Order: sequence, then C-alpha cells, then structure tokens
Amino acid sequence: MELIEKLKWRYAAKAMNGEKVSQDKIDTIIEAASLAPTSSGLQPFEIMVVTNPEVKAKIREIGWNQSVITDCSHLLVFAAWDTYTAERINKMFDLTNEVRGFENEGWENYRQMLLNSYPQKDAEENFQHAARQAYIAFSQSIAAAAFEGVDSTPIEGFDPAALDQILNLKEKGLRSCVILALGYRDSDKDWLVNLTKVRKSKEDLVTYID
Amino acid sequence: MELIEKLKWRYAAKAMNGEKVSQDKIDTIIEAASLAPTSSGLQPFEIMVVTNPEVKAKIREIGWNQSVITDCSHLLVFAAWDTYTAERINKMFDLTNEVRGFENEGWENYRQMLLNSYPQKDAEENFQHAARQAYIAFSQSIAAAAFEGVDSTPIEGFDPAALDQILNLKEKGLRSCVILALGYRDSDKDWLVNLTKVRKSKEDLVTYID
Repeated sequence: MELIEKLKWRYAAKAMNGEKVSQDKIDTIIEAASLAPTSSGLQPFEIMVVTNPEVKAKIREIGWNQSVITDCSHLLVFAAWDTYTAERINKMFDLTNEVRGFENEGWENYRQMLLNSYPQKDAEENFQHAARQAYIAFSQSIAAAAFEGVDSTPIEGFDPAALDQILNLKEKGLRSCVILALGYRDSDKDWLVNLTKVRKSKEDLVTYID
Repeated sequence: MELIEKLKWRYAAKAMNGEKVSQDKIDTIIEAASLAPTSSGLQPFEIMVVTNPEVKAKIREIGWNQSVITDCSHLLVFAAWDTYTAERINKMFDLTNEVRGFENEGWENYRQMLLNSYPQKDAEENFQHAARQAYIAFSQSIAAAAFEGVDSTPIEGFDPAALDQILNLKEKGLRSCVILALGYRDSDKDWLVNLTKVRKSKEDLVTYID
C-alpha cells in the first residue's frame, strides 16, 4: 500500500540541507491539515509558516538549538485557540450555514449546546482540547509531507511561552503547541537517517476484543 | 494528488451499514498508527479494537447513544499511558538498543534525561502529553482509512472514565482518549453525507512569516 510505504520512508530528519520545498507541496501539506477532522468542525487552531531566517534563528534559540529549525525550508508552527469563545463558535456555525446555504434546527440546537458549555469552561481545559485538534491536523500534515516525498521533523522541544512571544500569538488568542520542520534530509550529516525505525510489537500495541 | 482526494472524500459518517472491514485493511490502518511519530519514540498508547457486539452496545450507552458505535465494523479505542514511568521509558530504550544491535552514549544520556524528568512530573501532566501522542497516531489511522476507502468516524463524545471501566483500562495503566469507528457509510440514512464539507478560509488558517 503506497501510503504505508511513504510512512515507512519518513523519519524525523535531524539534519536538513536547506533545499526549498516548492509552494505546490507546501499548499498540499497545508491542505491536508485543513481537511483534518476536528471536534464539532471548529478547527480551533492556526498555522504560522515561517521562512524568515531571522525569525527561524530566534526560534532555534528557544528550541534547544536544534539545527533543523534553521536548516529546514519551512517551519510550520501549529497554534491552538487559547480558549473557546462564543464569537469563535458562532463564526464557524455562521460559515457553515453560509456555505451550505441553509439553516437547520438540529444544527442550531447543537450550536446552542456548545455555546452553553465551552465558553463557561476553564480556559486551560479548553486550550488542552483545542491543542488535541491541532495535533490531528499536524499529523495529517506529516502524512501528506511523506506522501509528497518531503521530510518533516516534529518538534515539541521548545519553550511555548517564548515562541508565543516571538510570533505575537497571545494577541491573536493563540498558544503554540507543536512545530513541524519541512525540508529535505541531509543524509551525510544525519546520525538518525540510517538507523532502523523502532516500533513496539503489535502485541504490545493492539488488544482485540472480539 | 491522490491522498488529498481521499481526504476530501472522507467525512465523519453518522450512519454505517454494518459491512465488515477486511482484516487486511484493519492491519493497514493499525500499521499507520504504529508508524506515527511520537515524542522520544515512546509510543505512549495502546489501541483496543472492539468488534464484540455486547461490548459495543455498552460503549454506545456511555457514548451519547451514537448509532455508529454499534453499526460500525471495528471500533478503535486509543488509550494513552496514565503517566510515564521509568519502567515504560526503559522498555522502549531497551527495545531500541535490541533492534539496532548497539548501545550509544548519546542515546543513553537521552534516556537518563527522560528518566530524570517524566517520572517526577504530575501524572495528569504526563497523561495529557501522552494523549497528544495518541492523537498523532489516531490521525494517521484516519488518513490511512481514507486512503483505503474505509469510512471512519472520530468520536470524542463519550464518558472516558466509564469507557476505562468497560475495557479495564485502569488495571493496564491506560486512560481512553478518543475513539475511531471504522466501517462503511450508509448513505440512505446519513444526514451528513451529502452536505458540503466546510473549512475556514486559508486566510483564517495560515499566516506566512517570510
């Protein structure tokens, strides 16, 4: 199966060669993130696509000095909503009505249910939920990158508060969750590229309840 | 691009027809989850694959009575580690050494760094981190299912504590995070199948920092 072969090919490149990823491929990788399912279809996240060298250098400083941060082609920062607000919920429901061209009672009741729950919850709880949705999109970007033959390195090792400051995310009501560096592996410089991919056995991963 | 076409085809089926998904396709969908990248390669989750009708019925009771829970072919429950322990960390590092056939100083230092941080942290914080890794795998399963022409419905609407009890997850040191129902859409009964997929504009999703 072609997708599985691509997922086996992919690994978290530890060195990239600076080669630029084409805008076509970037568009595809972002399209995959956009198509990812999210809870109630709210898509509670945004993606910052960083190519600016000075900004990348600043991010590397608060990202454990990982070289791929500056040597990659595009750095995708997935940032989730800092909380769910009525305005944000209404915007997505209004957009849905607009795109589909009609209002529906069941859908409007569902909107009310969300309006009566999320905004009253603790912001931190809402952010944690939104962050999981961002991870769904992040993961679909990884799969799409692999499918396109683009290397991608998932990065959780950074200071989120510092990154939020570099990208002015607080003002946008966002908090950074995870980074994906896109580019092309530098096989000569990467200690990981020739090491066997290790995964736990299927017996340790899966339990069948027949 | 073929993957994107498949991701556009997919949607969260609200009615399934009971048709069985072949074991080949289930294996592929689980393989995608297994290949998903996770923080430090720890794969801090397991997957329960439920086909037993009585167990599905019990899960439907604590899952907002959603019909796909019983009408799907396979119900995948993604359950994350309740915390990171030294034993769990060592197991993955030992496996890596075994598979690769050598010990490496850098890798062993990294093991010590993880042993000196994760197990001392709050279990809830560790679980939240592990849950995000489970979501990466969950999302790759969704992409693989779409690629295989299998419908999948992501389900967050359930009582996690009750599900943990049904599946005896607590004894295994696991907590349920999210469910994926796999099967085939019942287009005649599904109110959602013919509605346009709604996604926010690229302008609302992406910011380029050039």
